[in-house]
Amino acid sequence: MPILSTAATRFADAVYADRLRRASAEAESRGIGALLVTPSADYEYLLGYRAPAMERLTCLIVASEAPPALVVPLLEEPLARNALGAMAEEIEILPWDETADPFHLVRDRLKGQLRIGLQDQMWSRFVLRLKALLEPAELVDAGPAIGAVRRVKQPEEVERLAAAAAAADDAMLAILAERLSGTTEVEVSRRISSLLVEAGHETAEFAIVASGPNSASPHHDPGDRVITSGDALVLDIGGLRAGYSSDTTRTAFVSEAPPDFAALYDVLQRAHLAACEAVAPGIPARDVDRAARHVIDEAGYGAAFTHRTGHGIGMETHEEPYIVESNAEPLVAGNAFSIEPGIYIEGVWGARIEDIVVCTETGGERLNSTSTELAIVD
Amino acid sequence: MPILSTAATRFADAVYADRLRRASAEAESRGIGALLVTPSADYEYLLGYRAPAMERLTCLIVASEAPPALVVPLLEEPLARNALGAMAEEIEILPWDETADPFHLVRDRLKGQLRIGLQDQMWSRFVLRLKALLEPAELVDAGPAIGAVRRVKQPEEVERLAAAAAAADDAMLAILAERLSGTTEVEVSRRISSLLVEAGHETAEFAIVASGPNSASPHHDPGDRVITSGDALVLDIGGLRAGYSSDTTRTAFVSEAPPDFAALYDVLQRAHLAACEAVAPGIPARDVDRAARHVIDEAGYGAAFTHRTGHGIGMETHEEPYIVESNAEPLVAGNAFSIEPGIYIEGVWGARIEDIVVCTETGGERLNSTSTELAIVD
Repeated sequence: MPILSTAATRFADAVYADRLRRASAEAESRGIGALLVTPSADYEYLLGYRAPAMERLTCLIVASEAPPALVVPLLEEPLARNALGAMAEEIEILPWDETADPFHLVRDRLKGQLRIGLQDQMWSRFVLRLKALLEPAELVDAGPAIGAVRRVKQPEEVERLAAAAAAADDAMLAILAERLSGTTEVEVSRRISSLLVEAGHETAEFAIVASGPNSASPHHDPGDRVITSGDALVLDIGGLRAGYSSDTTRTAFVSEAPPDFAALYDVLQRAHLAACEAVAPGIPARDVDRAARHVIDEAGYGAAFTHRTGHGIGMETHEEPYIVESNAEPLVAGNAFSIEPGIYIEGVWGARIEDIVVCTETGGERLNSTSTELAIVD
Repeated sequence: MPILSTAATRFADAVYADRLRRASAEAESRGIGALLVTPSADYEYLLGYRAPAMERLTCLIVASEAPPALVVPLLEEPLARNALGAMAEEIEILPWDETADPFHLVRDRLKGQLRIGLQDQMWSRFVLRLKALLEPAELVDAGPAIGAVRRVKQPEEVERLAAAAAAADDAMLAILAERLSGTTEVEVSRRISSLLVEAGHETAEFAIVASGPNSASPHHDPGDRVITSGDALVLDIGGLRAGYSSDTTRTAFVSEAPPDFAALYDVLQRAHLAACEAVAPGIPARDVDRAARHVIDEAGYGAAFTHRTGHGIGMETHEEPYIVESNAEPLVAGNAFSIEPGIYIEGVWGARIEDIVVCTETGGERLNSTSTELAIVD
């Protein structure tokens, strides 16, 4: 439950009315009669305020033939009305008190619906209750329908992603200018968290600091290892700014990099550039992954690139579109995603370069602007 | 994804071996042959490290007749092995790469199981995939089985809850000593977040600041309202310290409280005390709720107490046992929960008092130690 005020993140009401309309249309085009959306980024995307995901059921119901309805715990009705403002008049608000059963409220709004889409992070405890109660209706994943709307960023969203990326760049430049050898990974991670907030994020969300052999672990959990001369150092950092995510990775070397690391890094830098240059509307997402992978494969490091090239980004750090072999969907203008190839040699070292890129009508536009050269730090 | 290092939160390996055994036994006693646990507090509780909840499937499989198995994305295998240490030898680790289908790995470990428990916050996208793949097995909510283990805190957990409560108390005392009138709710909320961290939390999780008429909204989202003389002020704050939650609420009044607010607050204080005194092993959880509600009902404020009396607390801010009319389960030593009655008069003001209480062999023990008297602030 990051601490973010609705006032600081909310767009105009018309933005949400439009999103609700588009999500409903996407659902209908997939044969889904109603969407059930519990607290999540989808919920915030559609309503413009954040409700806590918890054991009490809060559920937005979006059906094609009726105004949206919102089942909400009685004690959160004032929160919802206050956050929704004038929009509350367009939504049927259905509060339930602690001794009532909110699932029946949901069922009563869904009469006759045979195919119902569930927000894709809805908790299983709710899914299992709804499944039993809504028989024989078919429950399906609402992810593709809502994702189809969310993955096309509107200009006001690209602006926020750019501001978040700029803040992360400031934090990255600041940490790379500090003396890091002699400090532990955890200390550097905490320092980065502070820098992310100082640079304008409301919250720091992650700060991976992977040094020496730990740099071969893509999602390393920073520990007590002391950073020393001769270490490769992977820094993967991000936070939330006005409700949108940043995510950038740079690789550094403490003092001079040996020739074999420099050679590996050169391959990585070319792979990153090739993927950035492959971005264009109409290009299948997998081709961006292939562009990076081709360079790395050719150089003989194929088995050391153990993950996909990237993930979409927006209100969540990971969302559609995924830049991965299995995604043949063509890119469209407004898609925003990471490009982050990596090369990892177990027990020795690793490296990764990550930028956020937006697909525009004319090609990819990088939102991060720090150099992708190997950083040399003290 | 709060930033917390495994090293700072992990207990000895034997603690996790014992938890895994008890969870498996609880499942078996409920006719559940296997538990599927995706990243969540349950996952961290059982394995001792935090994995990010994301679109890539990570899933712990706990079955009665086999060693635990862990399906994990290839890029997170080093994270898992590093975090698990020697424990990794007792667990069958099954990595999958980005182009593979991890659900088949899960299915292959579950052969012959007819009743499978799902971690209760598992994402619906995974539930729906597993449902289709595991037919005709019955999928049930694993919450009651795992909750039965988690809701009995061991001494090392009570120690952490006490340390978290003490840190929240420090932050509460500090904010109540500051001049609050003339500042906005959001400013005070940010200030509390800093104080929570300064007092020893790794992260601030929430800081509700509800002033004037907003104090009648139990889960108010702090906004731009300027705090002024004559305001009631509800502060509900908490964070994570060494992996365990704090959560405390105090009510203040800016300058002198009028007699009708003082009268309301007196009822609330008596309700809070009555509930604290009702805590004892063997007492149904609902009786603690009733103890608070009885005092408030008798004073004529019954309809203004719009929520249950409390929730369990541990690695999550809300977990079992819930202190609510529908919970007839008897309390046992080691249960830890909030006692937080509130009275809310829409459009006017509200008040709440919240302490964390542990049920011991001899009765309830408050972990918070700040005064429950109405605070008068500038």
